Amino acid sequence: MLVDYGSRDKLFLDAVLEVREGLLQVAGVSKEKGYECVLMQGSGTAAVEAMLGTAVPKDGKVLLVINGAYGHRQTAICKYAGIPYETLVFEDSEPITVDRVRQTLRASRCSHVSLVHHETTAGVINPLEELVKMMKAEFPDLKVLVDSMSGFGAYELDMTWGIDFAVSSANKCIEGVPGFAYVLCATDALKQTQGNARSLTMDIFDQWANMESTGQFRYTPPTHAILAFKQALVEFHAEGGMDARKARYRATGPKPAREMQKMGFEFYVPEACRSYCICTFKTPEHPKFHFQTFYNLLAEQGFVIYPGKLSKGNSFRIGIIGRLFPKDCELLCLSVRKACEALQVPLPLR
Amino acid sequence: MLVDYGSRDKLFLDAVLEVREGLLQVAGVSKEKGYECVLMQGSGTAAVEAMLGTAVPKDGKVLLVINGAYGHRQTAICKYAGIPYETLVFEDSEPITVDRVRQTLRASRCSHVSLVHHETTAGVINPLEELVKMMKAEFPDLKVLVDSMSGFGAYELDMTWGIDFAVSSANKCIEGVPGFAYVLCATDALKQTQGNARSLTMDIFDQWANMESTGQFRYTPPTHAILAFKQALVEFHAEGGMDARKARYRATGPKPAREMQKMGFEFYVPEACRSYCICTFKTPEHPKFHFQTFYNLLAEQGFVIYPGKLSKGNSFRIGIIGRLFPKDCELLCLSVRKACEALQVPLPLR
Ligand SMILES: Cc1ncc(COP(=O)(O)O)c(C=O)c1O
Ligand SMILES: Cc1ncc(COP(=O)(O)O)c(C=O)c1O
Repeated sequence: MLVDYGSRDKLFLDAVLEVREGLLQVAGVSKEKGYECVLMQGSGTAAVEAMLGTAVPKDGKVLLVINGAYGHRQTAICKYAGIPYETLVFEDSEPITVDRVRQTLRASRCSHVSLVHHETTAGVINPLEELVKMMKAEFPDLKVLVDSMSGFGAYELDMTWGIDFAVSSANKCIEGVPGFAYVLCATDALKQTQGNARSLTMDIFDQWANMESTGQFRYTPPTHAILAFKQALVEFHAEGGMDARKARYRATGPKPAREMQKMGFEFYVPEACRSYCICTFKTPEHPKFHFQTFYNLLAEQGFVIYPGKLSKGNSFRIGIIGRLFPKDCELLCLSVRKACEALQVPLPLR
Repeated sequence: MLVDYGSRDKLFLDAVLEVREGLLQVAGVSKEKGYECVLMQGSGTAAVEAMLGTAVPKDGKVLLVINGAYGHRQTAICKYAGIPYETLVFEDSEPITVDRVRQTLRASRCSHVSLVHHETTAGVINPLEELVKMMKAEFPDLKVLVDSMSGFGAYELDMTWGIDFAVSSANKCIEGVPGFAYVLCATDALKQTQGNARSLTMDIFDQWANMESTGQFRYTPPTHAILAFKQALVEFHAEGGMDARKARYRATGPKPAREMQKMGFEFYVPEACRSYCICTFKTPEHPKFHFQTFYNLLAEQGFVIYPGKLSKGNSFRIGIIGRLFPKDCELLCLSVRKACEALQVPLPLR
């Protein structure tokens, strides 16, 4: 990250190519197999907006299947940009189900469907493979859009299941630094999107066409974040690829979660669809449990947790996306105990 | 850039505040004086699109005053997003003139006007102060939008001249790394833009409202690029602020340009409006002057120049935005001589 490459420099263009190819490989595909990877400047949300705005034509309609705040954000995106849409909404503690999606698709005339793979809101993993395979088997013309921001790299995503577009960002499970996002595309589907985009900057087709013809970004790329990501991919493979990353997250996340359950903290999401990267707890009702103080006490000990993002009820989240190991989480549990002691909240809670 | 702050971390939020205030200061204003600075993830073009899309209401119309490729890009932005516009086009070797803008504004019913401060295409500096003062004196309701991407920090820009919105990016004359851009706004004008935006991600009003109420970005910010920029601002002031930066660029750029003129290279832009940051030369017509080879020969010696971006004729550019000093440019001139020797192109050209 301390090397200052020019955005037209061959060394930088080679890095871009390596990143694009590396990402396709993580998604089980390649250019030769008919897939493309397009890098987009900006945050993950911009890439989700770019995906919806580029994939859905003016006379199309997208079914937004929602089970959390990131799904709801897609509604806001469509409203702003005038993208025709319909919604199917689940609770944020439950997974999207194949049956209800099938029913809705039968009744609607949607050309596209969009859903979140790993809903970070409460930490719910959706049955992506089943959903996509059902959609493609029963609605062959349907185009499938996936926001896999916090899933990609830690939960399997294979484009050949029938995914047409999938988005993730640099700073999630591949463990790069923030600054750009990427869109994995089925080449056939991508080629049909010319002229759809509602925005110059967020035109994935145009970005791709330019990258293909010149190797360059259309507009100044975040060179340092891309070089960092190239290294993150090297480390991802050195660790053993997705299986190893998954195994580490699995060994790291659920253990402290169970430990916290023993302390009396209540899970928000049932075990069957609970993520191993993000875990939501209901905020204890004990009168002395003051969340901001709890948060600060943990932060002082080096643990930054997340306030909840649920539509209903108070909650907080523990996220373990990043360079974290089981030992870190043992320390976290000790810190939670200490914080409760300082708050004079006796454990176990009840 | 090697520190990994959380995007809700107080240390990071303080850095964001420092950057926002520091940028207003460079633009001669402050929050107290009625101005705001909004940071936007992504490249400079995204921020230009955000400015046009947020400032111009559906029933407004923007006059795009164009003298280069970056001005023309605004036309593309407006076409994509359905922003009503009109254009006034100058040659890319000439500056925008007060008289023709006045005439056009008299004849049109534009609510907004947008122009580029320092046109990087050929390296033309436009008379921003005169233009803005005339506009505000003669068309008091007109809102003035400025793309000062490659000007801000090296050419004076004072919001109090009457500028309502001005955009620049992290990696230009303040000398940070790429990853975000910023919009300087007159608070009154900004407050009138609620509900205008065509895009969620590029809604400057919403980004601002959220930054004001929480101190945070709406979506994941490029934390490392922002921390680098905070340091770039420290170095900007340590050097002596805009006057010193300007003096260094002035001492660095024009000298090799004159030296190249002595070698027989021809300027594309007349002296009166020629930039001291970017200088365009016509590609020599000598049969042995092969541009790509010339480019590679210079690159091997550590000098990366730019191919031209003009609509007419072949050209190349020398840019000195960045941590460059007069000595670097002396070396550049030596390298140009060496490259011509290698190409067997005798100097001076004629
Ligand atoms: C599932 C999901 N979608 C979208 C986003 C938005 O990404 P960003 O904050 O980079 O805009 C996130 C961020 O955490 C996410 O988890
Ligand atoms: C005047 C001007 N406007 C806009 C841009 C676009 O900025 P970016 O490449 O960061 O999108 C540039 C880039 O050099 C520029 O010089």
